[in-house]
Amino acid sequence: MSPVSRKDFTSDNVAGASPEMLAALATANVGTARSYGADDVSTALARRAEAVFERPVTILPVATGTAANALALSILARPYEATYCATTAHVMTDECGAPEFYTGGAKLLTLASDDGRIAPAQLTESMAVIRTMGVHHVQPSSVSISQATEWGTVYSRAALAALADTAHGLGLKLHMDGARFANALVHQGCTPAEATWKSGVDVLSLGATKNGAFAAEAVVLFDPALAAEFEFRRKRAGHLWSKMRFLSAQLLAYLSDDLWLRNARQANAMASRLALGLTSIAGVALVQPVEANELFVSLPDAVTARLRAAGFGFYDWPAPAGFAGPVYRLVTAYDMSADDVDGFLATARG
Amino acid sequence: MSPVSRKDFTSDNVAGASPEMLAALATANVGTARSYGADDVSTALARRAEAVFERPVTILPVATGTAANALALSILARPYEATYCATTAHVMTDECGAPEFYTGGAKLLTLASDDGRIAPAQLTESMAVIRTMGVHHVQPSSVSISQATEWGTVYSRAALAALADTAHGLGLKLHMDGARFANALVHQGCTPAEATWKSGVDVLSLGATKNGAFAAEAVVLFDPALAAEFEFRRKRAGHLWSKMRFLSAQLLAYLSDDLWLRNARQANAMASRLALGLTSIAGVALVQPVEANELFVSLPDAVTARLRAAGFGFYDWPAPAGFAGPVYRLVTAYDMSADDVDGFLATARG
Amino acid sequence: MSPVSRKDFTSDNVAGASPEMLAALATANVGTARSYGADDVSTALARRAEAVFERPVTILPVATGTAANALALSILARPYEATYCATTAHVMTDECGAPEFYTGGAKLLTLASDDGRIAPAQLTESMAVIRTMGVHHVQPSSVSISQATEWGTVYSRAALAALADTAHGLGLKLHMDGARFANALVHQGCTPAEATWKSGVDVLSLGATKNGAFAAEAVVLFDPALAAEFEFRRKRAGHLWSKMRFLSAQLLAYLSDDLWLRNARQANAMASRLALGLTSIAGVALVQPVEANELFVSLPDAVTARLRAAGFGFYDWPAPAGFAGPVYRLVTAYDMSADDVDGFLATARG
Amino acid sequence: MSPVSRKDFTSDNVAGASPEMLAALATANVGTARSYGADDVSTALARRAEAVFERPVTILPVATGTAANALALSILARPYEATYCATTAHVMTDECGAPEFYTGGAKLLTLASDDGRIAPAQLTESMAVIRTMGVHHVQPSSVSISQATEWGTVYSRAALAALADTAHGLGLKLHMDGARFANALVHQGCTPAEATWKSGVDVLSLGATKNGAFAAEAVVLFDPALAAEFEFRRKRAGHLWSKMRFLSAQLLAYLSDDLWLRNARQANAMASRLALGLTSIAGVALVQPVEANELFVSLPDAVTARLRAAGFGFYDWPAPAGFAGPVYRLVTAYDMSADDVDGFLATARG
Repeated sequence: MSPVSRKDFTSDNVAGASPEMLAALATANVGTARSYGADDVSTALARRAEAVFERPVTILPVATGTAANALALSILARPYEATYCATTAHVMTDECGAPEFYTGGAKLLTLASDDGRIAPAQLTESMAVIRTMGVHHVQPSSVSISQATEWGTVYSRAALAALADTAHGLGLKLHMDGARFANALVHQGCTPAEATWKSGVDVLSLGATKNGAFAAEAVVLFDPALAAEFEFRRKRAGHLWSKMRFLSAQLLAYLSDDLWLRNARQANAMASRLALGLTSIAGVALVQPVEANELFVSLPDAVTARLRAAGFGFYDWPAPAGFAGPVYRLVTAYDMSADDVDGFLATARG
Repeated sequence: MSPVSRKDFTSDNVAGASPEMLAALATANVGTARSYGADDVSTALARRAEAVFERPVTILPVATGTAANALALSILARPYEATYCATTAHVMTDECGAPEFYTGGAKLLTLASDDGRIAPAQLTESMAVIRTMGVHHVQPSSVSISQATEWGTVYSRAALAALADTAHGLGLKLHMDGARFANALVHQGCTPAEATWKSGVDVLSLGATKNGAFAAEAVVLFDPALAAEFEFRRKRAGHLWSKMRFLSAQLLAYLSDDLWLRNARQANAMASRLALGLTSIAGVALVQPVEANELFVSLPDAVTARLRAAGFGFYDWPAPAGFAGPVYRLVTAYDMSADDVDGFLATARG
Repeated sequence: MSPVSRKDFTSDNVAGASPEMLAALATANVGTARSYGADDVSTALARRAEAVFERPVTILPVATGTAANALALSILARPYEATYCATTAHVMTDECGAPEFYTGGAKLLTLASDDGRIAPAQLTESMAVIRTMGVHHVQPSSVSISQATEWGTVYSRAALAALADTAHGLGLKLHMDGARFANALVHQGCTPAEATWKSGVDVLSLGATKNGAFAAEAVVLFDPALAAEFEFRRKRAGHLWSKMRFLSAQLLAYLSDDLWLRNARQANAMASRLALGLTSIAGVALVQPVEANELFVSLPDAVTARLRAAGFGFYDWPAPAGFAGPVYRLVTAYDMSADDVDGFLATARG
Repeated sequence: MSPVSRKDFTSDNVAGASPEMLAALATANVGTARSYGADDVSTALARRAEAVFERPVTILPVATGTAANALALSILARPYEATYCATTAHVMTDECGAPEFYTGGAKLLTLASDDGRIAPAQLTESMAVIRTMGVHHVQPSSVSISQATEWGTVYSRAALAALADTAHGLGLKLHMDGARFANALVHQGCTPAEATWKSGVDVLSLGATKNGAFAAEAVVLFDPALAAEFEFRRKRAGHLWSKMRFLSAQLLAYLSDDLWLRNARQANAMASRLALGLTSIAGVALVQPVEANELFVSLPDAVTARLRAAGFGFYDWPAPAGFAGPVYRLVTAYDMSADDVDGFLATARG
């Protein structure tokens, strides 16, 4: 076991940054550079993004996931329009109304979900009602899904494509909140292109912070025509860095040498290891399948007590409908080792 | 002269970050930390800010100056209110409407200014008219000044206190856009407390990015009662970092060991050296007094041509009223050496 | 039966205005008057409102119910706050996002409701969760209820007081959307004071349009301290009439000589008569109790066909959960006679 | 002189409504009608508007001029854009920030004006600067002019066409605030088509309230493609009347039988009569040419004192630059008679 074991399973945002990130900042810090994104690092990032996604894209860095999502939604929904999302969506529950702020008051229309995913029929049914309401109801323009979802599940490529087809058929654009996109991607085992635009995603919020960056996310626009409006909105929101090279440098490092995939694989592997170990303990049950780096588990009180006493951190979580007993969320991250997980399991077993 | 001379005088945001900043990030990157500001570095920053300002304050880090200003104004002006500023104010001309976005459409009411400063009588005169207009006109709630100003000038302590007294007497709060606060502070030669709340400043946007940080600014609230609303607005705007330690670490380094003052002194000294050298050249004139790290100068065309040919960078600038001939802005920064300045002067002299 | 029978049961807004309203406009139209509410009619309305509600109030006329509700909510919820309402609430489903527009993006948080009413425990349970989420979730500041509800039901005085007590205990203000307030009031059989502030209502949207006005609603503030902000917001929204006397005249007529109560009693009586007649027809069932002037009924297809063929108008309505068969909404109004209702019933019986 | 002389010259909004308006309401009040604009009166208005403007147009009634202007601007400027207007524009100074509210924070960029009009060169010069500022400055999308202006002047057809040409060449749409459009129209002596779209106006706020209606204005869209967005925004703002027939009836009466022109001619004639009479008094001077129904005059103190003592109402007005002595605004209206004006003049002469 490492000298200081890694005992905090509350969130992947308690981790620091990958060493590669610090090195990238140091390299980018040499000399002067043009500001607001006209620097060489930002240019290299733009090229790298096109290589990764195998097509012309516009990649627009910001520092937080809330900013990425809210800006993305602001170009997809006018104030008198709406965006569908799951009841569990981060944009709905954890961003303090950022989408409503950025869109000028467009609505988020929630669709019930047991596992964080929404289904095509939900869109069709809701739209059938809302279309009849004319000017009395905000009209949906878009759908926002989380990949991986807030329940740690992942849309399969087929499920994603089906949802996108239905959305497009209804005149809705598809936004993907990819705060944990890399975790979903390595689970799916397909290419970034297949996981996004080839499956019908129009706009991607690409997370890096939870997976190794200091603070770096990006909005990836698969339709370059949206870029101009986005850039004005980003500036207006105070999310255009003057020393943009330092934001771009993180994202360039992230997308280079497979860092994002390596980090995500480690996080996911630790989640699988943890799930495997926990389900061998009597009284422990998984609430959701483990497909990325989050576990939702029911733990016997004695197990919980032992873990808390030993200093392990993890959150209580609202139990889903039809599920009795206390539920907890456990989050692994790229900086966790097998020893860290095994330490948790050893304590859990008692 | 250094191996690579520093030839870009377009802005202080072309500079990289101080070595101390990189070291601070590396130190803060050890181990896990609680997110959203509940970490030890953020706590240390809060204490440091209180020491620097000699009183209880709330310091709220964000990544950009536009965010700092817009958030600050959003807690000082309701949507049906207004904020006074100079016609030249960054909040008016360079933030793509961020104040209007963050306040929900409050107005910026501009006051004419030759040198970037506004005078107490301007407030009194305008308020006398607007107060009579009742609900037909947005009512001013606040004043925003830049220190140092966008013309490179600095409010004296007396001028600042007089403006604050008048503002408060009219029921207006005083916001200071301190994107270059450290440059103004070392020019004034007083304490941070004297330069702010002791002179009547209610809310300060404290800049660090232009003076040595990667990307770090802070809003300093001298009235802690404003903090709760601010925190909701910051989250809602996507400016609350999950890994807040990395934003706090920059600001803590900035306010420690006099880094902010050392950097600002160097930038200001280079501006003075440049001003002194330039004014000894025939045909060169200063448009404004040089009180911080920005120079506004009229240059003969031949001088301009030599500098451009040699690769020196600087912007054309709109000439102020009553000033003939082409005007340019030159900005020095903490990372410039006397050799850099002398190189510029040598080329200018031809 | 009257020469032209009244066959349109789609909504109470298909009715014209009471003769008293036209007379009131004619009277108010004599001579010049000060604009923006400084006229004698508006002063008389202010006095009349205080007499009706038996206490100092501020009454603020606007032309539409959406404006009244959205303005009311805008002074009760900051952009980073939220208002609870039923899933069926007009503010949620029929105002095209007006609350979000007027509040600057505050959220409406919906509470499930079978009959249009919400219960105290729903507030308590939701708040227990949301309070723990801090800045990550908009924090509720208020509750909006409809009286009568969109299902034609009415909160009893006891139910209203219990809800208000719970809301106030949680720090929430209570707004009542009284688009059909008079219909609810005559059903309750209590005083306007008892139906509002004596039961804990903080702000009332008082409807008149559906009950006899051309276009007139009012926001009644039981806390005069809220008036100043409201007046700025009303002007800013374009809802301050320059010739305010013509809006005030309608409301003054409405609240005088029991016009509002007489009209509401007629509408409610016609709804009761219609309910009584319909429920004597085989296969007809009421979906909700009839407590105001709206009926929600299940009709056999043959009945529906006969009515439609005879030119009677009424809307299809989404059937509530657990209710099979086609459901329809029937709305009576002050201008309907017993003959009109009997004509409907005769056709329904076939 | 009439039994009760008409002594209030403060504004045209102190007048009541024309008898034709009351008659129109009475006629429209017969029977039931479909709500939200699907009624016969609204259909007739749509046809009438097309006849008046000699082309397909969309006419969208609202109750106030502020609503008409703010809604018009909201479809012409995105939140990160701007609208040019004169410093004196009603949208800038008298609507409590309604344009900023409705647009979501777009800026009004003011152009200096001595007489309420702006000139093509002002647009060209300002755009040349702003275009260079990229995302750092909101980019203009539109121009809003007042016709007649707030100084009582009228753009000639040639001046209007020149301004429109320049605006269009710069990619800017042209909005006309026609709160006193009829007054301008009868001054120009051309057709409504010539005064608007044939001269390049894209969107017109057509006032009726100041010229004989109870409360009725309309936005006229010469580009029908803008109508859908407008209708959502109108509903969302609470400006869609449920009993729309009563708003449409006023506008239909206004545009029928030359009522609007007759009323405007009377108001303008009274202004001319007043101007002629006043300028024959020693010490009286016109500050602006009198081209519609507003006069701005300098009066000797003795004259002012006599008028005030006799009960005549009129406002003090800020003197324009370079004009000494107290200035007053006098507004005539359709309901003023020659006797009323002569009474004013007789008192003024002493």
